[in-house]
Amino acid sequence: MGTALNALKMLEYFSSSQPEIGLSHIARLAGLNKATALRHLRALEEFGLIEQNPQTKSYAIGPAALRLAALREIAKPGLDGARQKMQAAMHEVGESLHLTLLEKDTLQTALVVETTQHSVRVSLDPSEIIPVNATASGLCMLSFGPAFLLERLESDTLTRFTEATMTDPKIIRDRVAQIGQAGWANSNGSFEDGVFGYAAPIFGIDQIAIGTIAIAVPEIRATSARQPLILTSLHTLSKELTANFGGQTPETFPTEFHP
Amino acid sequence: MGTALNALKMLEYFSSSQPEIGLSHIARLAGLNKATALRHLRALEEFGLIEQNPQTKSYAIGPAALRLAALREIAKPGLDGARQKMQAAMHEVGESLHLTLLEKDTLQTALVVETTQHSVRVSLDPSEIIPVNATASGLCMLSFGPAFLLERLESDTLTRFTEATMTDPKIIRDRVAQIGQAGWANSNGSFEDGVFGYAAPIFGIDQIAIGTIAIAVPEIRATSARQPLILTSLHTLSKELTANFGGQTPETFPTEFHP
Repeated sequence: MGTALNALKMLEYFSSSQPEIGLSHIARLAGLNKATALRHLRALEEFGLIEQNPQTKSYAIGPAALRLAALREIAKPGLDGARQKMQAAMHEVGESLHLTLLEKDTLQTALVVETTQHSVRVSLDPSEIIPVNATASGLCMLSFGPAFLLERLESDTLTRFTEATMTDPKIIRDRVAQIGQAGWANSNGSFEDGVFGYAAPIFGIDQIAIGTIAIAVPEIRATSARQPLILTSLHTLSKELTANFGGQTPETFPTEFHP
Repeated sequence: MGTALNALKMLEYFSSSQPEIGLSHIARLAGLNKATALRHLRALEEFGLIEQNPQTKSYAIGPAALRLAALREIAKPGLDGARQKMQAAMHEVGESLHLTLLEKDTLQTALVVETTQHSVRVSLDPSEIIPVNATASGLCMLSFGPAFLLERLESDTLTRFTEATMTDPKIIRDRVAQIGQAGWANSNGSFEDGVFGYAAPIFGIDQIAIGTIAIAVPEIRATSARQPLILTSLHTLSKELTANFGGQTPETFPTEFHP
């Protein structure tokens, strides 16, 4: 499998900040001599996964990627793929899951998978708009999503849902900075009493969050003993759903979540 | 380049009608023994371009395709890519080009590239909705586009623009059948006197046309001597723009256009 995989790995150096790369540069990035790099690029080019700009001579991802993406979407539509991954996690963790996506400028519920293992469980309204200040998903989105969400914090009216809801922009900004380091957010009854949430980002291709995945746990089961399992699942989901929606996790993102 | 390209070629067997394929089947399609096919699939799987369904064990295009497609769109957005290809063809043929896309249920102008080589040239209105009965693009879309366009021919009112405009659905259907065989359509002053059009389809992933590419020629240059050049360019554009938009040309589509 060596050669094929080595050729494919050339594709990993392209990113939203580096959509075109020249031969010398990509050879250096891959730690290959130019002749080997060129051989790999030619194979990818022949298939259409790489395209050379005739003016600049540098390389970019080719049109075959679009055809493959369309086929992927037919085989496993984005939300179907996400639902499968959420169902697997639900069986593992035994809690309800909640996927939100940023639609225009509000965070909206896109998918809900409820646990089937407990009669006491968090039941989520699939039509809900998610308040950024009161939920783990919202705080996560403030930390990893587009900057405008954080910028308008002062001008928005922040609703208080429970005793625990944060409404002071300054306090929220402090929390957001911590979440940016940790990679995950939690909420302890700040939206609804007795409901604990754990959320992690789903990144888009530009490494900005397009949405979040959250695990919602009733207070009775939100014990510190169960946290490692929840956080491990959350980390895996963040990675898998980012891939599922064609995004890219930033290199600076934590490789594991710590309580 | 052998191994890498051979591995990539496994991806060619996936289509909208065959989004999931089992190991034996894909090995047979590729003319490889199962061990070799599996080795290729594993390399693609490791990179995420292939994904195995854990239930059925069959393979589908993997999530990496989505990331690559997003990067392609950043490096070369669909219409930018199309414009470049149209400009190259304009220099080759010396005529104006016109790209239409089906938006909801009308054929709309998406891009116009005017020739810079002649002062007598066809100038096209970029905001135009294209009448299916009077233009080469429209007839092409009736032939290769979604069936509903042809089905509503009888119920729509078909405007007569010039003496040459077809308004009888029966006559149009006959012409559409011919175009289906030839791969390209033409119009001889049926929308505007003195304007000849040549059009070919741009296919989507399901091998149904999503739009058309047309070369618009003033009558004075629409000679039979220039037809081979025009038709060769048109054929190349049809292929290239289909790839540019992530589509797939049907296997039954002509490999060249004949006058």
